[in-house]
Amino acid sequence: MRSFKVAIVGFGSVGQGVAKVIASRNGIFDEAHAEFKIVAITDSKGAVLDPKGIDISSALKQKREGTLKRVSMSSLDVVKNVDYDILVEVTPTDARTGEPGLSYIIEALSRGKHVVTSNKGPLANQYKMLLGLSKENNVKLLFEATAGGAMPVFNLARTPLAGNKIKSIMGIFNGTCNYILTRMITEELPYDMVLSEAKELGYAEADPTYDVEGIDTALKLVILANAVFGMDVKLDDVDIVGISSITLDALKLASDDGYVVKLIGEVRPNGEESILRVSPRLVPKTHPLAVQGTLNAALMQTELAGDIMVIGKGAGSIETASAILSDMMYIASSKD
Amino acid sequence: MRSFKVAIVGFGSVGQGVAKVIASRNGIFDEAHAEFKIVAITDSKGAVLDPKGIDISSALKQKREGTLKRVSMSSLDVVKNVDYDILVEVTPTDARTGEPGLSYIIEALSRGKHVVTSNKGPLANQYKMLLGLSKENNVKLLFEATAGGAMPVFNLARTPLAGNKIKSIMGIFNGTCNYILTRMITEELPYDMVLSEAKELGYAEADPTYDVEGIDTALKLVILANAVFGMDVKLDDVDIVGISSITLDALKLASDDGYVVKLIGEVRPNGEESILRVSPRLVPKTHPLAVQGTLNAALMQTELAGDIMVIGKGAGSIETASAILSDMMYIASSKD
Repeated sequence: MRSFKVAIVGFGSVGQGVAKVIASRNGIFDEAHAEFKIVAITDSKGAVLDPKGIDISSALKQKREGTLKRVSMSSLDVVKNVDYDILVEVTPTDARTGEPGLSYIIEALSRGKHVVTSNKGPLANQYKMLLGLSKENNVKLLFEATAGGAMPVFNLARTPLAGNKIKSIMGIFNGTCNYILTRMITEELPYDMVLSEAKELGYAEADPTYDVEGIDTALKLVILANAVFGMDVKLDDVDIVGISSITLDALKLASDDGYVVKLIGEVRPNGEESILRVSPRLVPKTHPLAVQGTLNAALMQTELAGDIMVIGKGAGSIETASAILSDMMYIASSKD
Repeated sequence: MRSFKVAIVGFGSVGQGVAKVIASRNGIFDEAHAEFKIVAITDSKGAVLDPKGIDISSALKQKREGTLKRVSMSSLDVVKNVDYDILVEVTPTDARTGEPGLSYIIEALSRGKHVVTSNKGPLANQYKMLLGLSKENNVKLLFEATAGGAMPVFNLARTPLAGNKIKSIMGIFNGTCNYILTRMITEELPYDMVLSEAKELGYAEADPTYDVEGIDTALKLVILANAVFGMDVKLDDVDIVGISSITLDALKLASDDGYVVKLIGEVRPNGEESILRVSPRLVPKTHPLAVQGTLNAALMQTELAGDIMVIGKGAGSIETASAILSDMMYIASSKD
């Protein structure tokens, strides 16, 4: 049985989800002959530390009542100084700078610690550098949770499709947009009304720009482009059109012709002619990509196996926590 | 760079596909730092052997002109005596006995050789015994190609969903049935006519019983039940209803209500109440499982990640070869 000390930085819904699952059912890791012990949890204001293993229910209680206890150490201090094997970096995404997650990841990798993250910012901004750092220090940098939550895109590309060249990836990577587009056409409601409703239901943020203008999808696409295809691109390299100017009339016209409109992210490496774009596109209603509601879907064109698609929940704290756990299991079951 | 000597037993379309891919583009395996060298190929009548690596184009030429050269060794002799690291067992499936593949697999595992197979018969009949044998001899027995060709079901269950309990699997595991059912309703043609057409197009065998009566789907379900859920079931344990008595009228009625009819295999372990069945079932047209044509689809209900679906080509010699290669890559990248 190998034991891994885990530090969780960021204690929002995803961080809490990871902590809960680890605390409640360590037995599910038996298969990997691994044990995970959480030795540090931090949020933006405080931290809880215990080298013998944190009492999760007490940490969750502190969080319910506000923030974690204030301590003299900042999150960065914890990342730099505490003794752990895996950093679970689940702080909020900053699309432009990648901070503060970027600094945490750099510090952890430099110290020779594995990193598992759900944070798109650092990867979209500095993938190449971070990958280099992880290789240099002979540790893993895993980020299944960054593109499509519970939908195992990177995992699929890493193992099951190994040796089978992936030519392109296109898909629906934002549940908020998919919910809005689905709801508009099935209920025949205008964009603004559905957006308000989505906010009320928690499917859209108070400021939905990040989702509806296609930035979230573009970040995921950048990570896929760099990680799966070895490209070296940034957010500014993506052609982005969001869904905010789509009218119900346009959706109806498409529907009459047998199509639905979906916000599609597509990456297709081809040197100077590479495609890297996010835009609303027509999808035949009978096509497997025409998934409804908040679902995400990714279609991989492969050389030998034809088209392979994976569909799953793109968001949700438990689903995202599940992707993080899957990465932790991968580390635990790796032999190096 | 690790080098693996490969013996291919069965030189039909799948065996030839594997040989072609290995011969033509060994470079694709660079990522796994592995090299595969084919040292033996056998079919039911003859064999080609060369410890330094077989000239594939010459073997393919022999095959085009009839069978491989007759030699004094049978396939079983080759499996028992030749020096190889991985046996690729791709002989035809016998649902009831699993032979001759079963004997080949037993011999190879007993000799401490890895086995990769696309043959459903041996696994559906003797999974538990074969798994025991592989563990005893510390080698891998992999069979991604058995359930849904290029659709990576086992791989998905093995790594990306590790640590995330799978509660049930249901899906479309037979492209022939899916083609027939899709074509009947989209073209409004009766079963017999579509079946004849499917035979002409090569989507159905001259004797289609195995596919249309649900036996193929049931075999795949048995392998999933045993391999993913650790059950110990056989073909006789599956409740099977095929599609041969489905009428166009029934499909039309379903369609009017917003449903399509699909031949669904479902496994849901639950002790005495376990479900293991193959039957035509109604699927809402908007449900991701409502895939058309010859596509296969599998929906996994998971505890943490919700429903995850994978869609892919279920048949085709290159697609099946691709699944076999993926398994070979997995062996090459494993550290034990």
